[in-house]
Amino acid sequence: MLQNIMLIIAYDGTNYCGWQKQKNGITVQELIEKSCQKIFKAKVRVVGSSRTDSGVHADYQVVSIIVETSITIENIPLVFNKTLPHDIVVREAKLVPMEFHPIKDTKYKAYKYCILNSKTRQPKLNNYTYFYHNELDVEVMKQAAKHFLGTHDFRAFCSSKTVTQTTVRTIFEINIESEKNNIISIYVKGDGFLHNMVRIIVGTLVKVGEKKIDKNEIRNIIESKERKKAGPTAPPEGLTLEYVSYE
Amino acid sequence: MLQNIMLIIAYDGTNYCGWQKQKNGITVQELIEKSCQKIFKAKVRVVGSSRTDSGVHADYQVVSIIVETSITIENIPLVFNKTLPHDIVVREAKLVPMEFHPIKDTKYKAYKYCILNSKTRQPKLNNYTYFYHNELDVEVMKQAAKHFLGTHDFRAFCSSKTVTQTTVRTIFEINIESEKNNIISIYVKGDGFLHNMVRIIVGTLVKVGEKKIDKNEIRNIIESKERKKAGPTAPPEGLTLEYVSYE
Repeated sequence: MLQNIMLIIAYDGTNYCGWQKQKNGITVQELIEKSCQKIFKAKVRVVGSSRTDSGVHADYQVVSIIVETSITIENIPLVFNKTLPHDIVVREAKLVPMEFHPIKDTKYKAYKYCILNSKTRQPKLNNYTYFYHNELDVEVMKQAAKHFLGTHDFRAFCSSKTVTQTTVRTIFEINIESEKNNIISIYVKGDGFLHNMVRIIVGTLVKVGEKKIDKNEIRNIIESKERKKAGPTAPPEGLTLEYVSYE
Repeated sequence: MLQNIMLIIAYDGTNYCGWQKQKNGITVQELIEKSCQKIFKAKVRVVGSSRTDSGVHADYQVVSIIVETSITIENIPLVFNKTLPHDIVVREAKLVPMEFHPIKDTKYKAYKYCILNSKTRQPKLNNYTYFYHNELDVEVMKQAAKHFLGTHDFRAFCSSKTVTQTTVRTIFEINIESEKNNIISIYVKGDGFLHNMVRIIVGTLVKVGEKKIDKNEIRNIIESKERKKAGPTAPPEGLTLEYVSYE
């Protein structure tokens, strides 16, 4: 009997060309598919909630696979983790209704972006933070961030090649914190994100923190709907998919 | 005029065969020497305070180089960091007396070891923690750790191939903490450490935490002076050289 199994997976994106299968390099989706082939002796379609880019990490990516298997649901993570490389981990598996779809049924997603704002690098953080040398004013960044809250057309905050039905998205929460060791973290929760949206929001907030963009300019940038008015796309290594909710 | 320059360096040891130059692979010492060659146009002897092993990290390794240069001391880190790969960083440089020696003048050293004690890996921590699946009792480990304090012959806690004048060392401090995200950290401060000493202490404390070695057995293991009575050598990736003091 076919079952729909939800896998909660985590990965270090450093060595992968992102989530989605492609010709240019190894991706996480591809390795999960290969594991499925070994485990279930069948070609399985692996659907992920989020197409994370090359170098982007995930602590909580939601995946669904429809398979027929006698392996108990409790043992599914163990079986996967034996076939996967150590930088991809199945944290949890659960049975979900056959009609569950990890993209269409999403209620909200949360991402966290980490900036190392310091004069010198911390080598162990190279793959997990955006090293930014110039001093950033976190208070001003916090004030600017408020303008992203709510429902807006985020056309100015997505990569210009984005093809999508609508560029309207809702941001429920955006929190900026000064953490220890010169880390600035930016947590963003929304109903969905356009391609590069979090990284362009971060790149823009960094320019605000440096006083190169005024904090009240954010509203105008959003209204302009022009990609070139926003800041640069912050690099992928600082970004982690934190959570995907279906409730 | 020749000057003795102290460099405080940090590195991610993942991709290196440790500190000391060797034939089998690239080491940190070798890359610092190559940078010196480029910067000072001379062969410079690079002396480090600690010979960290392959895969071990440093947040604060102390290095001395004796060179003649017109570069100001303030600019030395900048110049080095332009020639070094991003996983090795010169944090600071200062002029020290010609007779200063980073090994002989050490007053104490501190290491931190991180264990991820969890049912599943956290991929972003793979290179920086010892993933240990079985549950560890941190309270029992804390009690056992006290037996390491003070001056002892640590022959049972060094790799059996160690050749040294004396295996007597003094441990000033050993702190074990349960941190967030299932991390257990072990901080050890001593006047010096034998080869693999911190990693064997950790490997032994892990066996205590698992109740495979009794917490009161530590004293007997030390007194036995037999390597085989102690626990296994914990893997390198959990270990970071935290500090070296000369005062």
